[in-house]
Amino acid sequence: MTKVMASVPQACFSWPVRVYIEDTDAGGIVFYANYLKYMERARTEFVRSKGIQLRQWMAEDISFVVHSLDVQYLKPARLDEELRVTASLKKLARSYMIFEQTVCRDNDILVTGQVKVACVELATGKPRPMPQALSLLNS
Amino acid sequence: MTKVMASVPQACFSWPVRVYIEDTDAGGIVFYANYLKYMERARTEFVRSKGIQLRQWMAEDISFVVHSLDVQYLKPARLDEELRVTASLKKLARSYMIFEQTVCRDNDILVTGQVKVACVELATGKPRPMPQALSLLNS
Amino acid sequence: MTKVMASVPQACFSWPVRVYIEDTDAGGIVFYANYLKYMERARTEFVRSKGIQLRQWMAEDISFVVHSLDVQYLKPARLDEELRVTASLKKLARSYMIFEQTVCRDNDILVTGQVKVACVELATGKPRPMPQALSLLNS
Amino acid sequence: MTKVMASVPQACFSWPVRVYIEDTDAGGIVFYANYLKYMERARTEFVRSKGIQLRQWMAEDISFVVHSLDVQYLKPARLDEELRVTASLKKLARSYMIFEQTVCRDNDILVTGQVKVACVELATGKPRPMPQALSLLNS
Repeated sequence: MTKVMASVPQACFSWPVRVYIEDTDAGGIVFYANYLKYMERARTEFVRSKGIQLRQWMAEDISFVVHSLDVQYLKPARLDEELRVTASLKKLARSYMIFEQTVCRDNDILVTGQVKVACVELATGKPRPMPQALSLLNS
Repeated sequence: MTKVMASVPQACFSWPVRVYIEDTDAGGIVFYANYLKYMERARTEFVRSKGIQLRQWMAEDISFVVHSLDVQYLKPARLDEELRVTASLKKLARSYMIFEQTVCRDNDILVTGQVKVACVELATGKPRPMPQALSLLNS
Repeated sequence: MTKVMASVPQACFSWPVRVYIEDTDAGGIVFYANYLKYMERARTEFVRSKGIQLRQWMAEDISFVVHSLDVQYLKPARLDEELRVTASLKKLARSYMIFEQTVCRDNDILVTGQVKVACVELATGKPRPMPQALSLLNS
Repeated sequence: MTKVMASVPQACFSWPVRVYIEDTDAGGIVFYANYLKYMERARTEFVRSKGIQLRQWMAEDISFVVHSLDVQYLKPARLDEELRVTASLKKLARSYMIFEQTVCRDNDILVTGQVKVACVELATGKPRPMPQALSLLNS
């Protein structure tokens, strides 16, 4: 719960997100759980940009689930703002991946997070090796 | 989009709901789509109170989907309020049910709605007769 | 709860929406309340395309709330699908607007809805005339 | 992203949560961001059980925001399950609190998390000392 990135990441995959009223709460800011939706959208689009859809293997009993995460909320986002959500692959292991993510507004980092996604058998939830195709994520 | 109940329904099934920050939006009130979550909870608990779980037939390729609804928003609910959500069965047809619902706070009706739920084949989405057990809903 | 549009609307405002895992439910389809989020995004972007943001008058005690709606769910949307959400202004009255909306996938209409949005005093929730600028919506 | 509790916490505050269809996703399990809603409900009710509502100071420009969190997802929760969400206060500092939380099903811990909540000025978002009354949380 400590590390904070010093500057907005430039080189990595980035996905635009607009804040709608559905995302906000009575405090006037984006509800803290909703940044996890933004991050999942960016991970999905990052993976899709490599020609992969994580859900394409569900018929083969292969699924992907979030194993753990940590998130630091630095500044709040508000209604109607245009944000940019980044996703980069920190580690690609045999049965899991670790993503580093940020939510940014112009040159401000609002939220940073690290998300570990595990490959599991859909039916049992047990860990299993990831499909070969995911090595594309490193390209 | 016209009919409005005149008084809080007394005799029908009622389910308590507390408003949490997740339910609210930047306008300081419950987000309009979230009342549909409250209504679904009350329908589920109403059906459960009759000894039925609508999802119990998924393995038999039977599912239930909302076919149509209309909702009137009369007064807003706010953070931390304790609400009561009612559900009553207006019609039990061969392949669908119509529920009448309200969201109330003390003696105020905040929201009223009518929701038509259809029984469908899970795989194809096509309408099909409802399981016999649902006749219990009329008891 | 009856009217259904015969064909995908061509001329009106349209906003793209991708279905993410956050939008789906255990039935494998988009959760019924979440189409209301899609519709609200399209209304917001339709209004924004006219140079207006509905929330710009909150400091002047002017807010907009959904007064009533009816929705018909014709076909389900599923994970990863690309949808198009349309919004057109059916009526612009002194203190409210009525929008007609659809959620489409290619040439299929999945959901249709009519949403009445009222202009209210933010503090009291009482109806009030809409700001003059909203006449732009008719242009 | 490492620590995992060995057994279900017994002595601490616990709040029941039922899994509804709104909470699930197309993978058939509770969507990962939605456990954060469960945790927020349990924190809110824990604080309320001490006679405090965190939002009671908004008129005095005092708000509470999540500063950071880490969550471990051990086992998935599914539709209709009855869960228990625990909240205990690990640390009460001058301007923030740290909660330890779990989501349990019978004797299984499904999710564990640690959430740091900061006291801020509502208008500026700057950290500020917590109201005196919060010392009640230690009682």
